Amino acid sequence: MSGRFSVTYLVRSDAAGIEARARGIAVEQSVEMPVEAIDDAAVLSDIVGVVEAIEPAGEGVFAVRIGLALDTVGTDAGQLTNMLFGNTSLQDDVVLHDVDLPPLFGGPSKGLAALRSRLGVTGRAFTGSALKPQGLPLERLALLAERFALGGLDFIKDDHGLADQHYSRAAKRIPAVAEAVARAIRVTGHPTRYIPSLSGDLDAMRAQLLLARDCGLDCAMLAPMIAGFSTLQTLAGEFPDFVLFAHPALGGAARISPDLLIGKLFPAFGAGGAIFPNYGGRFGYSTDTCHRLAENARAADSLPVPAGGMTLARTTEILDFYGPDTMLLIGGNLLMARERITEEAAQFAQAVADHPYGQRG
Amino acid sequence: MSGRFSVTYLVRSDAAGIEARARGIAVEQSVEMPVEAIDDAAVLSDIVGVVEAIEPAGEGVFAVRIGLALDTVGTDAGQLTNMLFGNTSLQDDVVLHDVDLPPLFGGPSKGLAALRSRLGVTGRAFTGSALKPQGLPLERLALLAERFALGGLDFIKDDHGLADQHYSRAAKRIPAVAEAVARAIRVTGHPTRYIPSLSGDLDAMRAQLLLARDCGLDCAMLAPMIAGFSTLQTLAGEFPDFVLFAHPALGGAARISPDLLIGKLFPAFGAGGAIFPNYGGRFGYSTDTCHRLAENARAADSLPVPAGGMTLARTTEILDFYGPDTMLLIGGNLLMARERITEEAAQFAQAVADHPYGQRG
Repeated sequence: MSGRFSVTYLVRSDAAGIEARARGIAVEQSVEMPVEAIDDAAVLSDIVGVVEAIEPAGEGVFAVRIGLALDTVGTDAGQLTNMLFGNTSLQDDVVLHDVDLPPLFGGPSKGLAALRSRLGVTGRAFTGSALKPQGLPLERLALLAERFALGGLDFIKDDHGLADQHYSRAAKRIPAVAEAVARAIRVTGHPTRYIPSLSGDLDAMRAQLLLARDCGLDCAMLAPMIAGFSTLQTLAGEFPDFVLFAHPALGGAARISPDLLIGKLFPAFGAGGAIFPNYGGRFGYSTDTCHRLAENARAADSLPVPAGGMTLARTTEILDFYGPDTMLLIGGNLLMARERITEEAAQFAQAVADHPYGQRG
Repeated sequence: MSGRFSVTYLVRSDAAGIEARARGIAVEQSVEMPVEAIDDAAVLSDIVGVVEAIEPAGEGVFAVRIGLALDTVGTDAGQLTNMLFGNTSLQDDVVLHDVDLPPLFGGPSKGLAALRSRLGVTGRAFTGSALKPQGLPLERLALLAERFALGGLDFIKDDHGLADQHYSRAAKRIPAVAEAVARAIRVTGHPTRYIPSLSGDLDAMRAQLLLARDCGLDCAMLAPMIAGFSTLQTLAGEFPDFVLFAHPALGGAARISPDLLIGKLFPAFGAGGAIFPNYGGRFGYSTDTCHRLAENARAADSLPVPAGGMTLARTTEILDFYGPDTMLLIGGNLLMARERITEEAAQFAQAVADHPYGQRG
């Protein structure tokens, strides 16, 4: 089956109909036309998708493995996604479940390993928090960042709602927060990283990354479902020294398994960190999904970052679950501390440092 | 409620819990943190989302209208989408149902009206077909385009699977097909439009549009869910003379109403044509959804283009349903005619021209 890669879909069907339905998906995701109207032998043998396997996957669902031609994808992340699920996403009996990615989509140039080395953090998980709420004047966002950093956190990210609004223009926010974090680093000696959120089109994000680099930063964040898959791929290629964190915004709105979309595809397109909604918070992901997602990300040297409704009280449980190769991102719960934010951040950092790793991970 | 715009979500909840859930969405889609941790009066009054209305919408579902601050959006289509559904897309009890769009997102500069004027087509629907299968050598794609155009079709679009593959590089495909269609136009006198499919990142799409313009074209297509919303917006702004058709690939986002996503948002971001899966074909959209989607598109001067498993035999029924302000896109079914494609295309064009419009539309 050379020249092809395998894609697995979960398809709702009865046993009598599944073979035809599987062929339908193979056609939809390749030539998208009646095969009997094709008279070109090379297209029939090399381009039309083939059904490689059909297996029962419980209660009226089948796992259908389709071999798609590498030639139909080329080198573009957007086109890969188009071939994986473009039209079939519009048919509600199918979930895109898994992909054996073509070697070309090999993951970030800088990810988990680079972060361990840059921050000098070994044997424990990373800590992070977020700058919120949007609408605060720049000075207050910068002050908040400084206080988080004084508490010894590893990462401070922009809220993903921070874009280029008049109250916190990216061109001013990135230098102001970078400088505030640098001040704290001079006190703590710990190389805390600020992760600015990129927004706008490719040109705007590129300008923001250039500015971030000028400010001495080497991390940034974007939401691939909003920005576009090719945008992530291009920026990862143009800024190979940056660790790009993928934010999952809009990522729940398609029938793609989260462990695939967030844990495998985003890293494959260049994300060195993958932020995702943790189980047991205010989002609906199961422990199984979170476990697989984190494993997928690590396999691509991408740092798994559970987030969303995380609390200090859950630190031990979450570290037991994910082990050391992870970042715990606690946003709102830390902010509740208001004037005691630095102390609270320090307590969080200490808990993560003191955790007895080793049972897992 | 000045400075805000309204977003409606359909939320699964019991009556006892809906008020708290609605407040939760208002917070998630604005500041995304515990409101009690916010001490800035301006953020509390001007930035935090507000619940404007909660109404029963049948069987355990409520329509929740939230007022979001215009300031949080600014001018970027990606950030608008982020504020509409970024995090809430990850919570599976919510569907993004409708938006009163901020005036800034006003629709395409060229759409339905421009197409009527450019093609000199009045009082009837438009006809279109697609170049397939991908994998054919360029010469065969060009020949196919010429034969469609000789049949008198209004539009010939690239299959959305055609990207920048080695067998049909965009840099060669666009001029070759444009020239083939131009040859047919010299025979028919009918100003058939070729709609090339754009792929890659913003830079690549921009280069493809410049090439298309050099070839005398004024239409193109892209898939906003794959390319990114800001990419569509930027290209629509930079190429105001082009009619950009939005392809729905990856748009089966189960939890954004298709009449909103495809019919309203894509046009708002600059799509002058909106391709969508027709009812009764191989996709699952209902007649109600298709009707609302088409109405939304027309309201923004965007041409509704039902497609997907359309057949010549259904022409009358579909025209009765959509009326004249539409394009019928018949792909695979026309291709079944093989050597008789020009004749079949001519028959299709004739059927659409002869249809007795007027009962609807």
